Amino acid sequence: VNALGIDIGGTTIAGALVDAGGAILESSARPTTATRPEGIIEAVADLVAELDPEGSAGTVGVAVAAFLDRTRSNVFFSPNISWVDFPLRQALTEALSRPVRIENDANAAGWGEFRFGAGRGAQSLMMLTMGTGVGGALVDEGRLIIGGFGSAGELGHIVIEPGGRPCGCGNRGCLEQYASGTALMRIARDYLEDPGLTPDGLARALEAGDPRAMKAFVEVCDAMGRGIASLVSVTDPDVVVIGGGVAKAGPILATLIQQHFESHYPAGGKRPVAAMRVATLGNTAGVIGAADLARISPTLGP
Amino acid sequence: VNALGIDIGGTTIAGALVDAGGAILESSARPTTATRPEGIIEAVADLVAELDPEGSAGTVGVAVAAFLDRTRSNVFFSPNISWVDFPLRQALTEALSRPVRIENDANAAGWGEFRFGAGRGAQSLMMLTMGTGVGGALVDEGRLIIGGFGSAGELGHIVIEPGGRPCGCGNRGCLEQYASGTALMRIARDYLEDPGLTPDGLARALEAGDPRAMKAFVEVCDAMGRGIASLVSVTDPDVVVIGGGVAKAGPILATLIQQHFESHYPAGGKRPVAAMRVATLGNTAGVIGAADLARISPTLGP
Repeated sequence: VNALGIDIGGTTIAGALVDAGGAILESSARPTTATRPEGIIEAVADLVAELDPEGSAGTVGVAVAAFLDRTRSNVFFSPNISWVDFPLRQALTEALSRPVRIENDANAAGWGEFRFGAGRGAQSLMMLTMGTGVGGALVDEGRLIIGGFGSAGELGHIVIEPGGRPCGCGNRGCLEQYASGTALMRIARDYLEDPGLTPDGLARALEAGDPRAMKAFVEVCDAMGRGIASLVSVTDPDVVVIGGGVAKAGPILATLIQQHFESHYPAGGKRPVAAMRVATLGNTAGVIGAADLARISPTLGP
Repeated sequence: VNALGIDIGGTTIAGALVDAGGAILESSARPTTATRPEGIIEAVADLVAELDPEGSAGTVGVAVAAFLDRTRSNVFFSPNISWVDFPLRQALTEALSRPVRIENDANAAGWGEFRFGAGRGAQSLMMLTMGTGVGGALVDEGRLIIGGFGSAGELGHIVIEPGGRPCGCGNRGCLEQYASGTALMRIARDYLEDPGLTPDGLARALEAGDPRAMKAFVEVCDAMGRGIASLVSVTDPDVVVIGGGVAKAGPILATLIQQHFESHYPAGGKRPVAAMRVATLGNTAGVIGAADLARISPTLGP
């Protein structure tokens, strides 16, 4: 049966009707109005009405950039939307008049890649997204790991530089300060002495073989490789998937990260090494994962 | 029913007959002869014959300080015993003439604490042992996390000081170089200018309020607190249990670690904070956990 997935991002709310094989049958979007939380609820309702007017898809899967409680009912807080201790599931269930399955956006994307993308077949998957920040997701033996309080997989917040750059989380030296798309642009703008450099501009400089652009890219891959070398000691994944905007760079990204990762791999040479893959679902991973979670575990929570 | 647990350590092989409530009914031990692997197999067989001569306990649970494959059949390698790609399960099954359930020693100890000790009731448990190294175990929703290749929970090998002290794993700056019992003794011997200082001597200096001993202790708690602050972003435990030889220091250990941990907690104040507890089973956690794993999942592996 088809399922409906919604992905509430910082600028766009994406929606899609997804079949049981993970293929998108129909999709649409609305802008995110971050300053007015009710506006987001209304936009989601509007999207759902457009994509599934007859309500045949049942439970709606909703991915959101937020710290959620274990039961996926309440938002502790969201970095982009003014929700604090907000009963999101109840609000959406009422607005949509149907059951809702909420998940953290990086988890939904990781689940999408696990089921239908680069993470297929993994016993233990670690997904990292290199975008505005560094997001993460963990799947172990077919289960999404959500942790004791619901916030497992915040992989961008392991510390790789003690006392380093201040992070939005309140700590210093977090992985996402060195290995996100934002970090890449900051470093590249510095090396290329071009404060107005855009992601497309950087992509062109990389294609043209600009050594300063390459240096910035390698630096970020080194940071990510070192971060992953720490992380594998925790969950020992057999597959690591790299997604997010930076993943548009393609296989070279996985190759460089793998290089730096292997030079810091604990007990290297004595045990199997995780395979590094670039995500294949792009920015549709969230809606695809959310839809699949709604199909598979629609009743999570009280 | 009663179950049999064996814990193969670097110096001692401990064995115990354990009841379904985790209580030890009988126990015994043999010295570890690390240079002759067959000697270890023989000693285990000897212990099993002593503790359960009639074979009524069925499957034997065996904890061992080693990197094990996913199926818990083969040892990739062991830091203390000369096993490399060794079919330990087959060797033990043949020597004991009964089924064997092998587990990594830190995982067995973590499972013991989860079932019968300081970790009871945890949704997501993280156990760290401060001994010769820093061992670790992860339990999530009642399942031991073993990872894609079988070596999850090697928490002592996340990096807390990039480019720092060389570690036996081949990497640099690993948590266990700063937060193990070994690290504590190294730092204390330096501060107290006493190369012959013993763990008991350090315990007495701490009790007497020696400020140099206290400084060493706080330094190690700070390192552990910072390590845990990174680790909670990965699995988001609701309970963290600290075990190993250093845990003999008691509640003050948990208090100090919690202090340093909270000052580095990502998104602190905005979401629930893990409870920090000192292990309660001491060095019997391994045999108790191994026995329980043998009782609960005797058939793991092909």
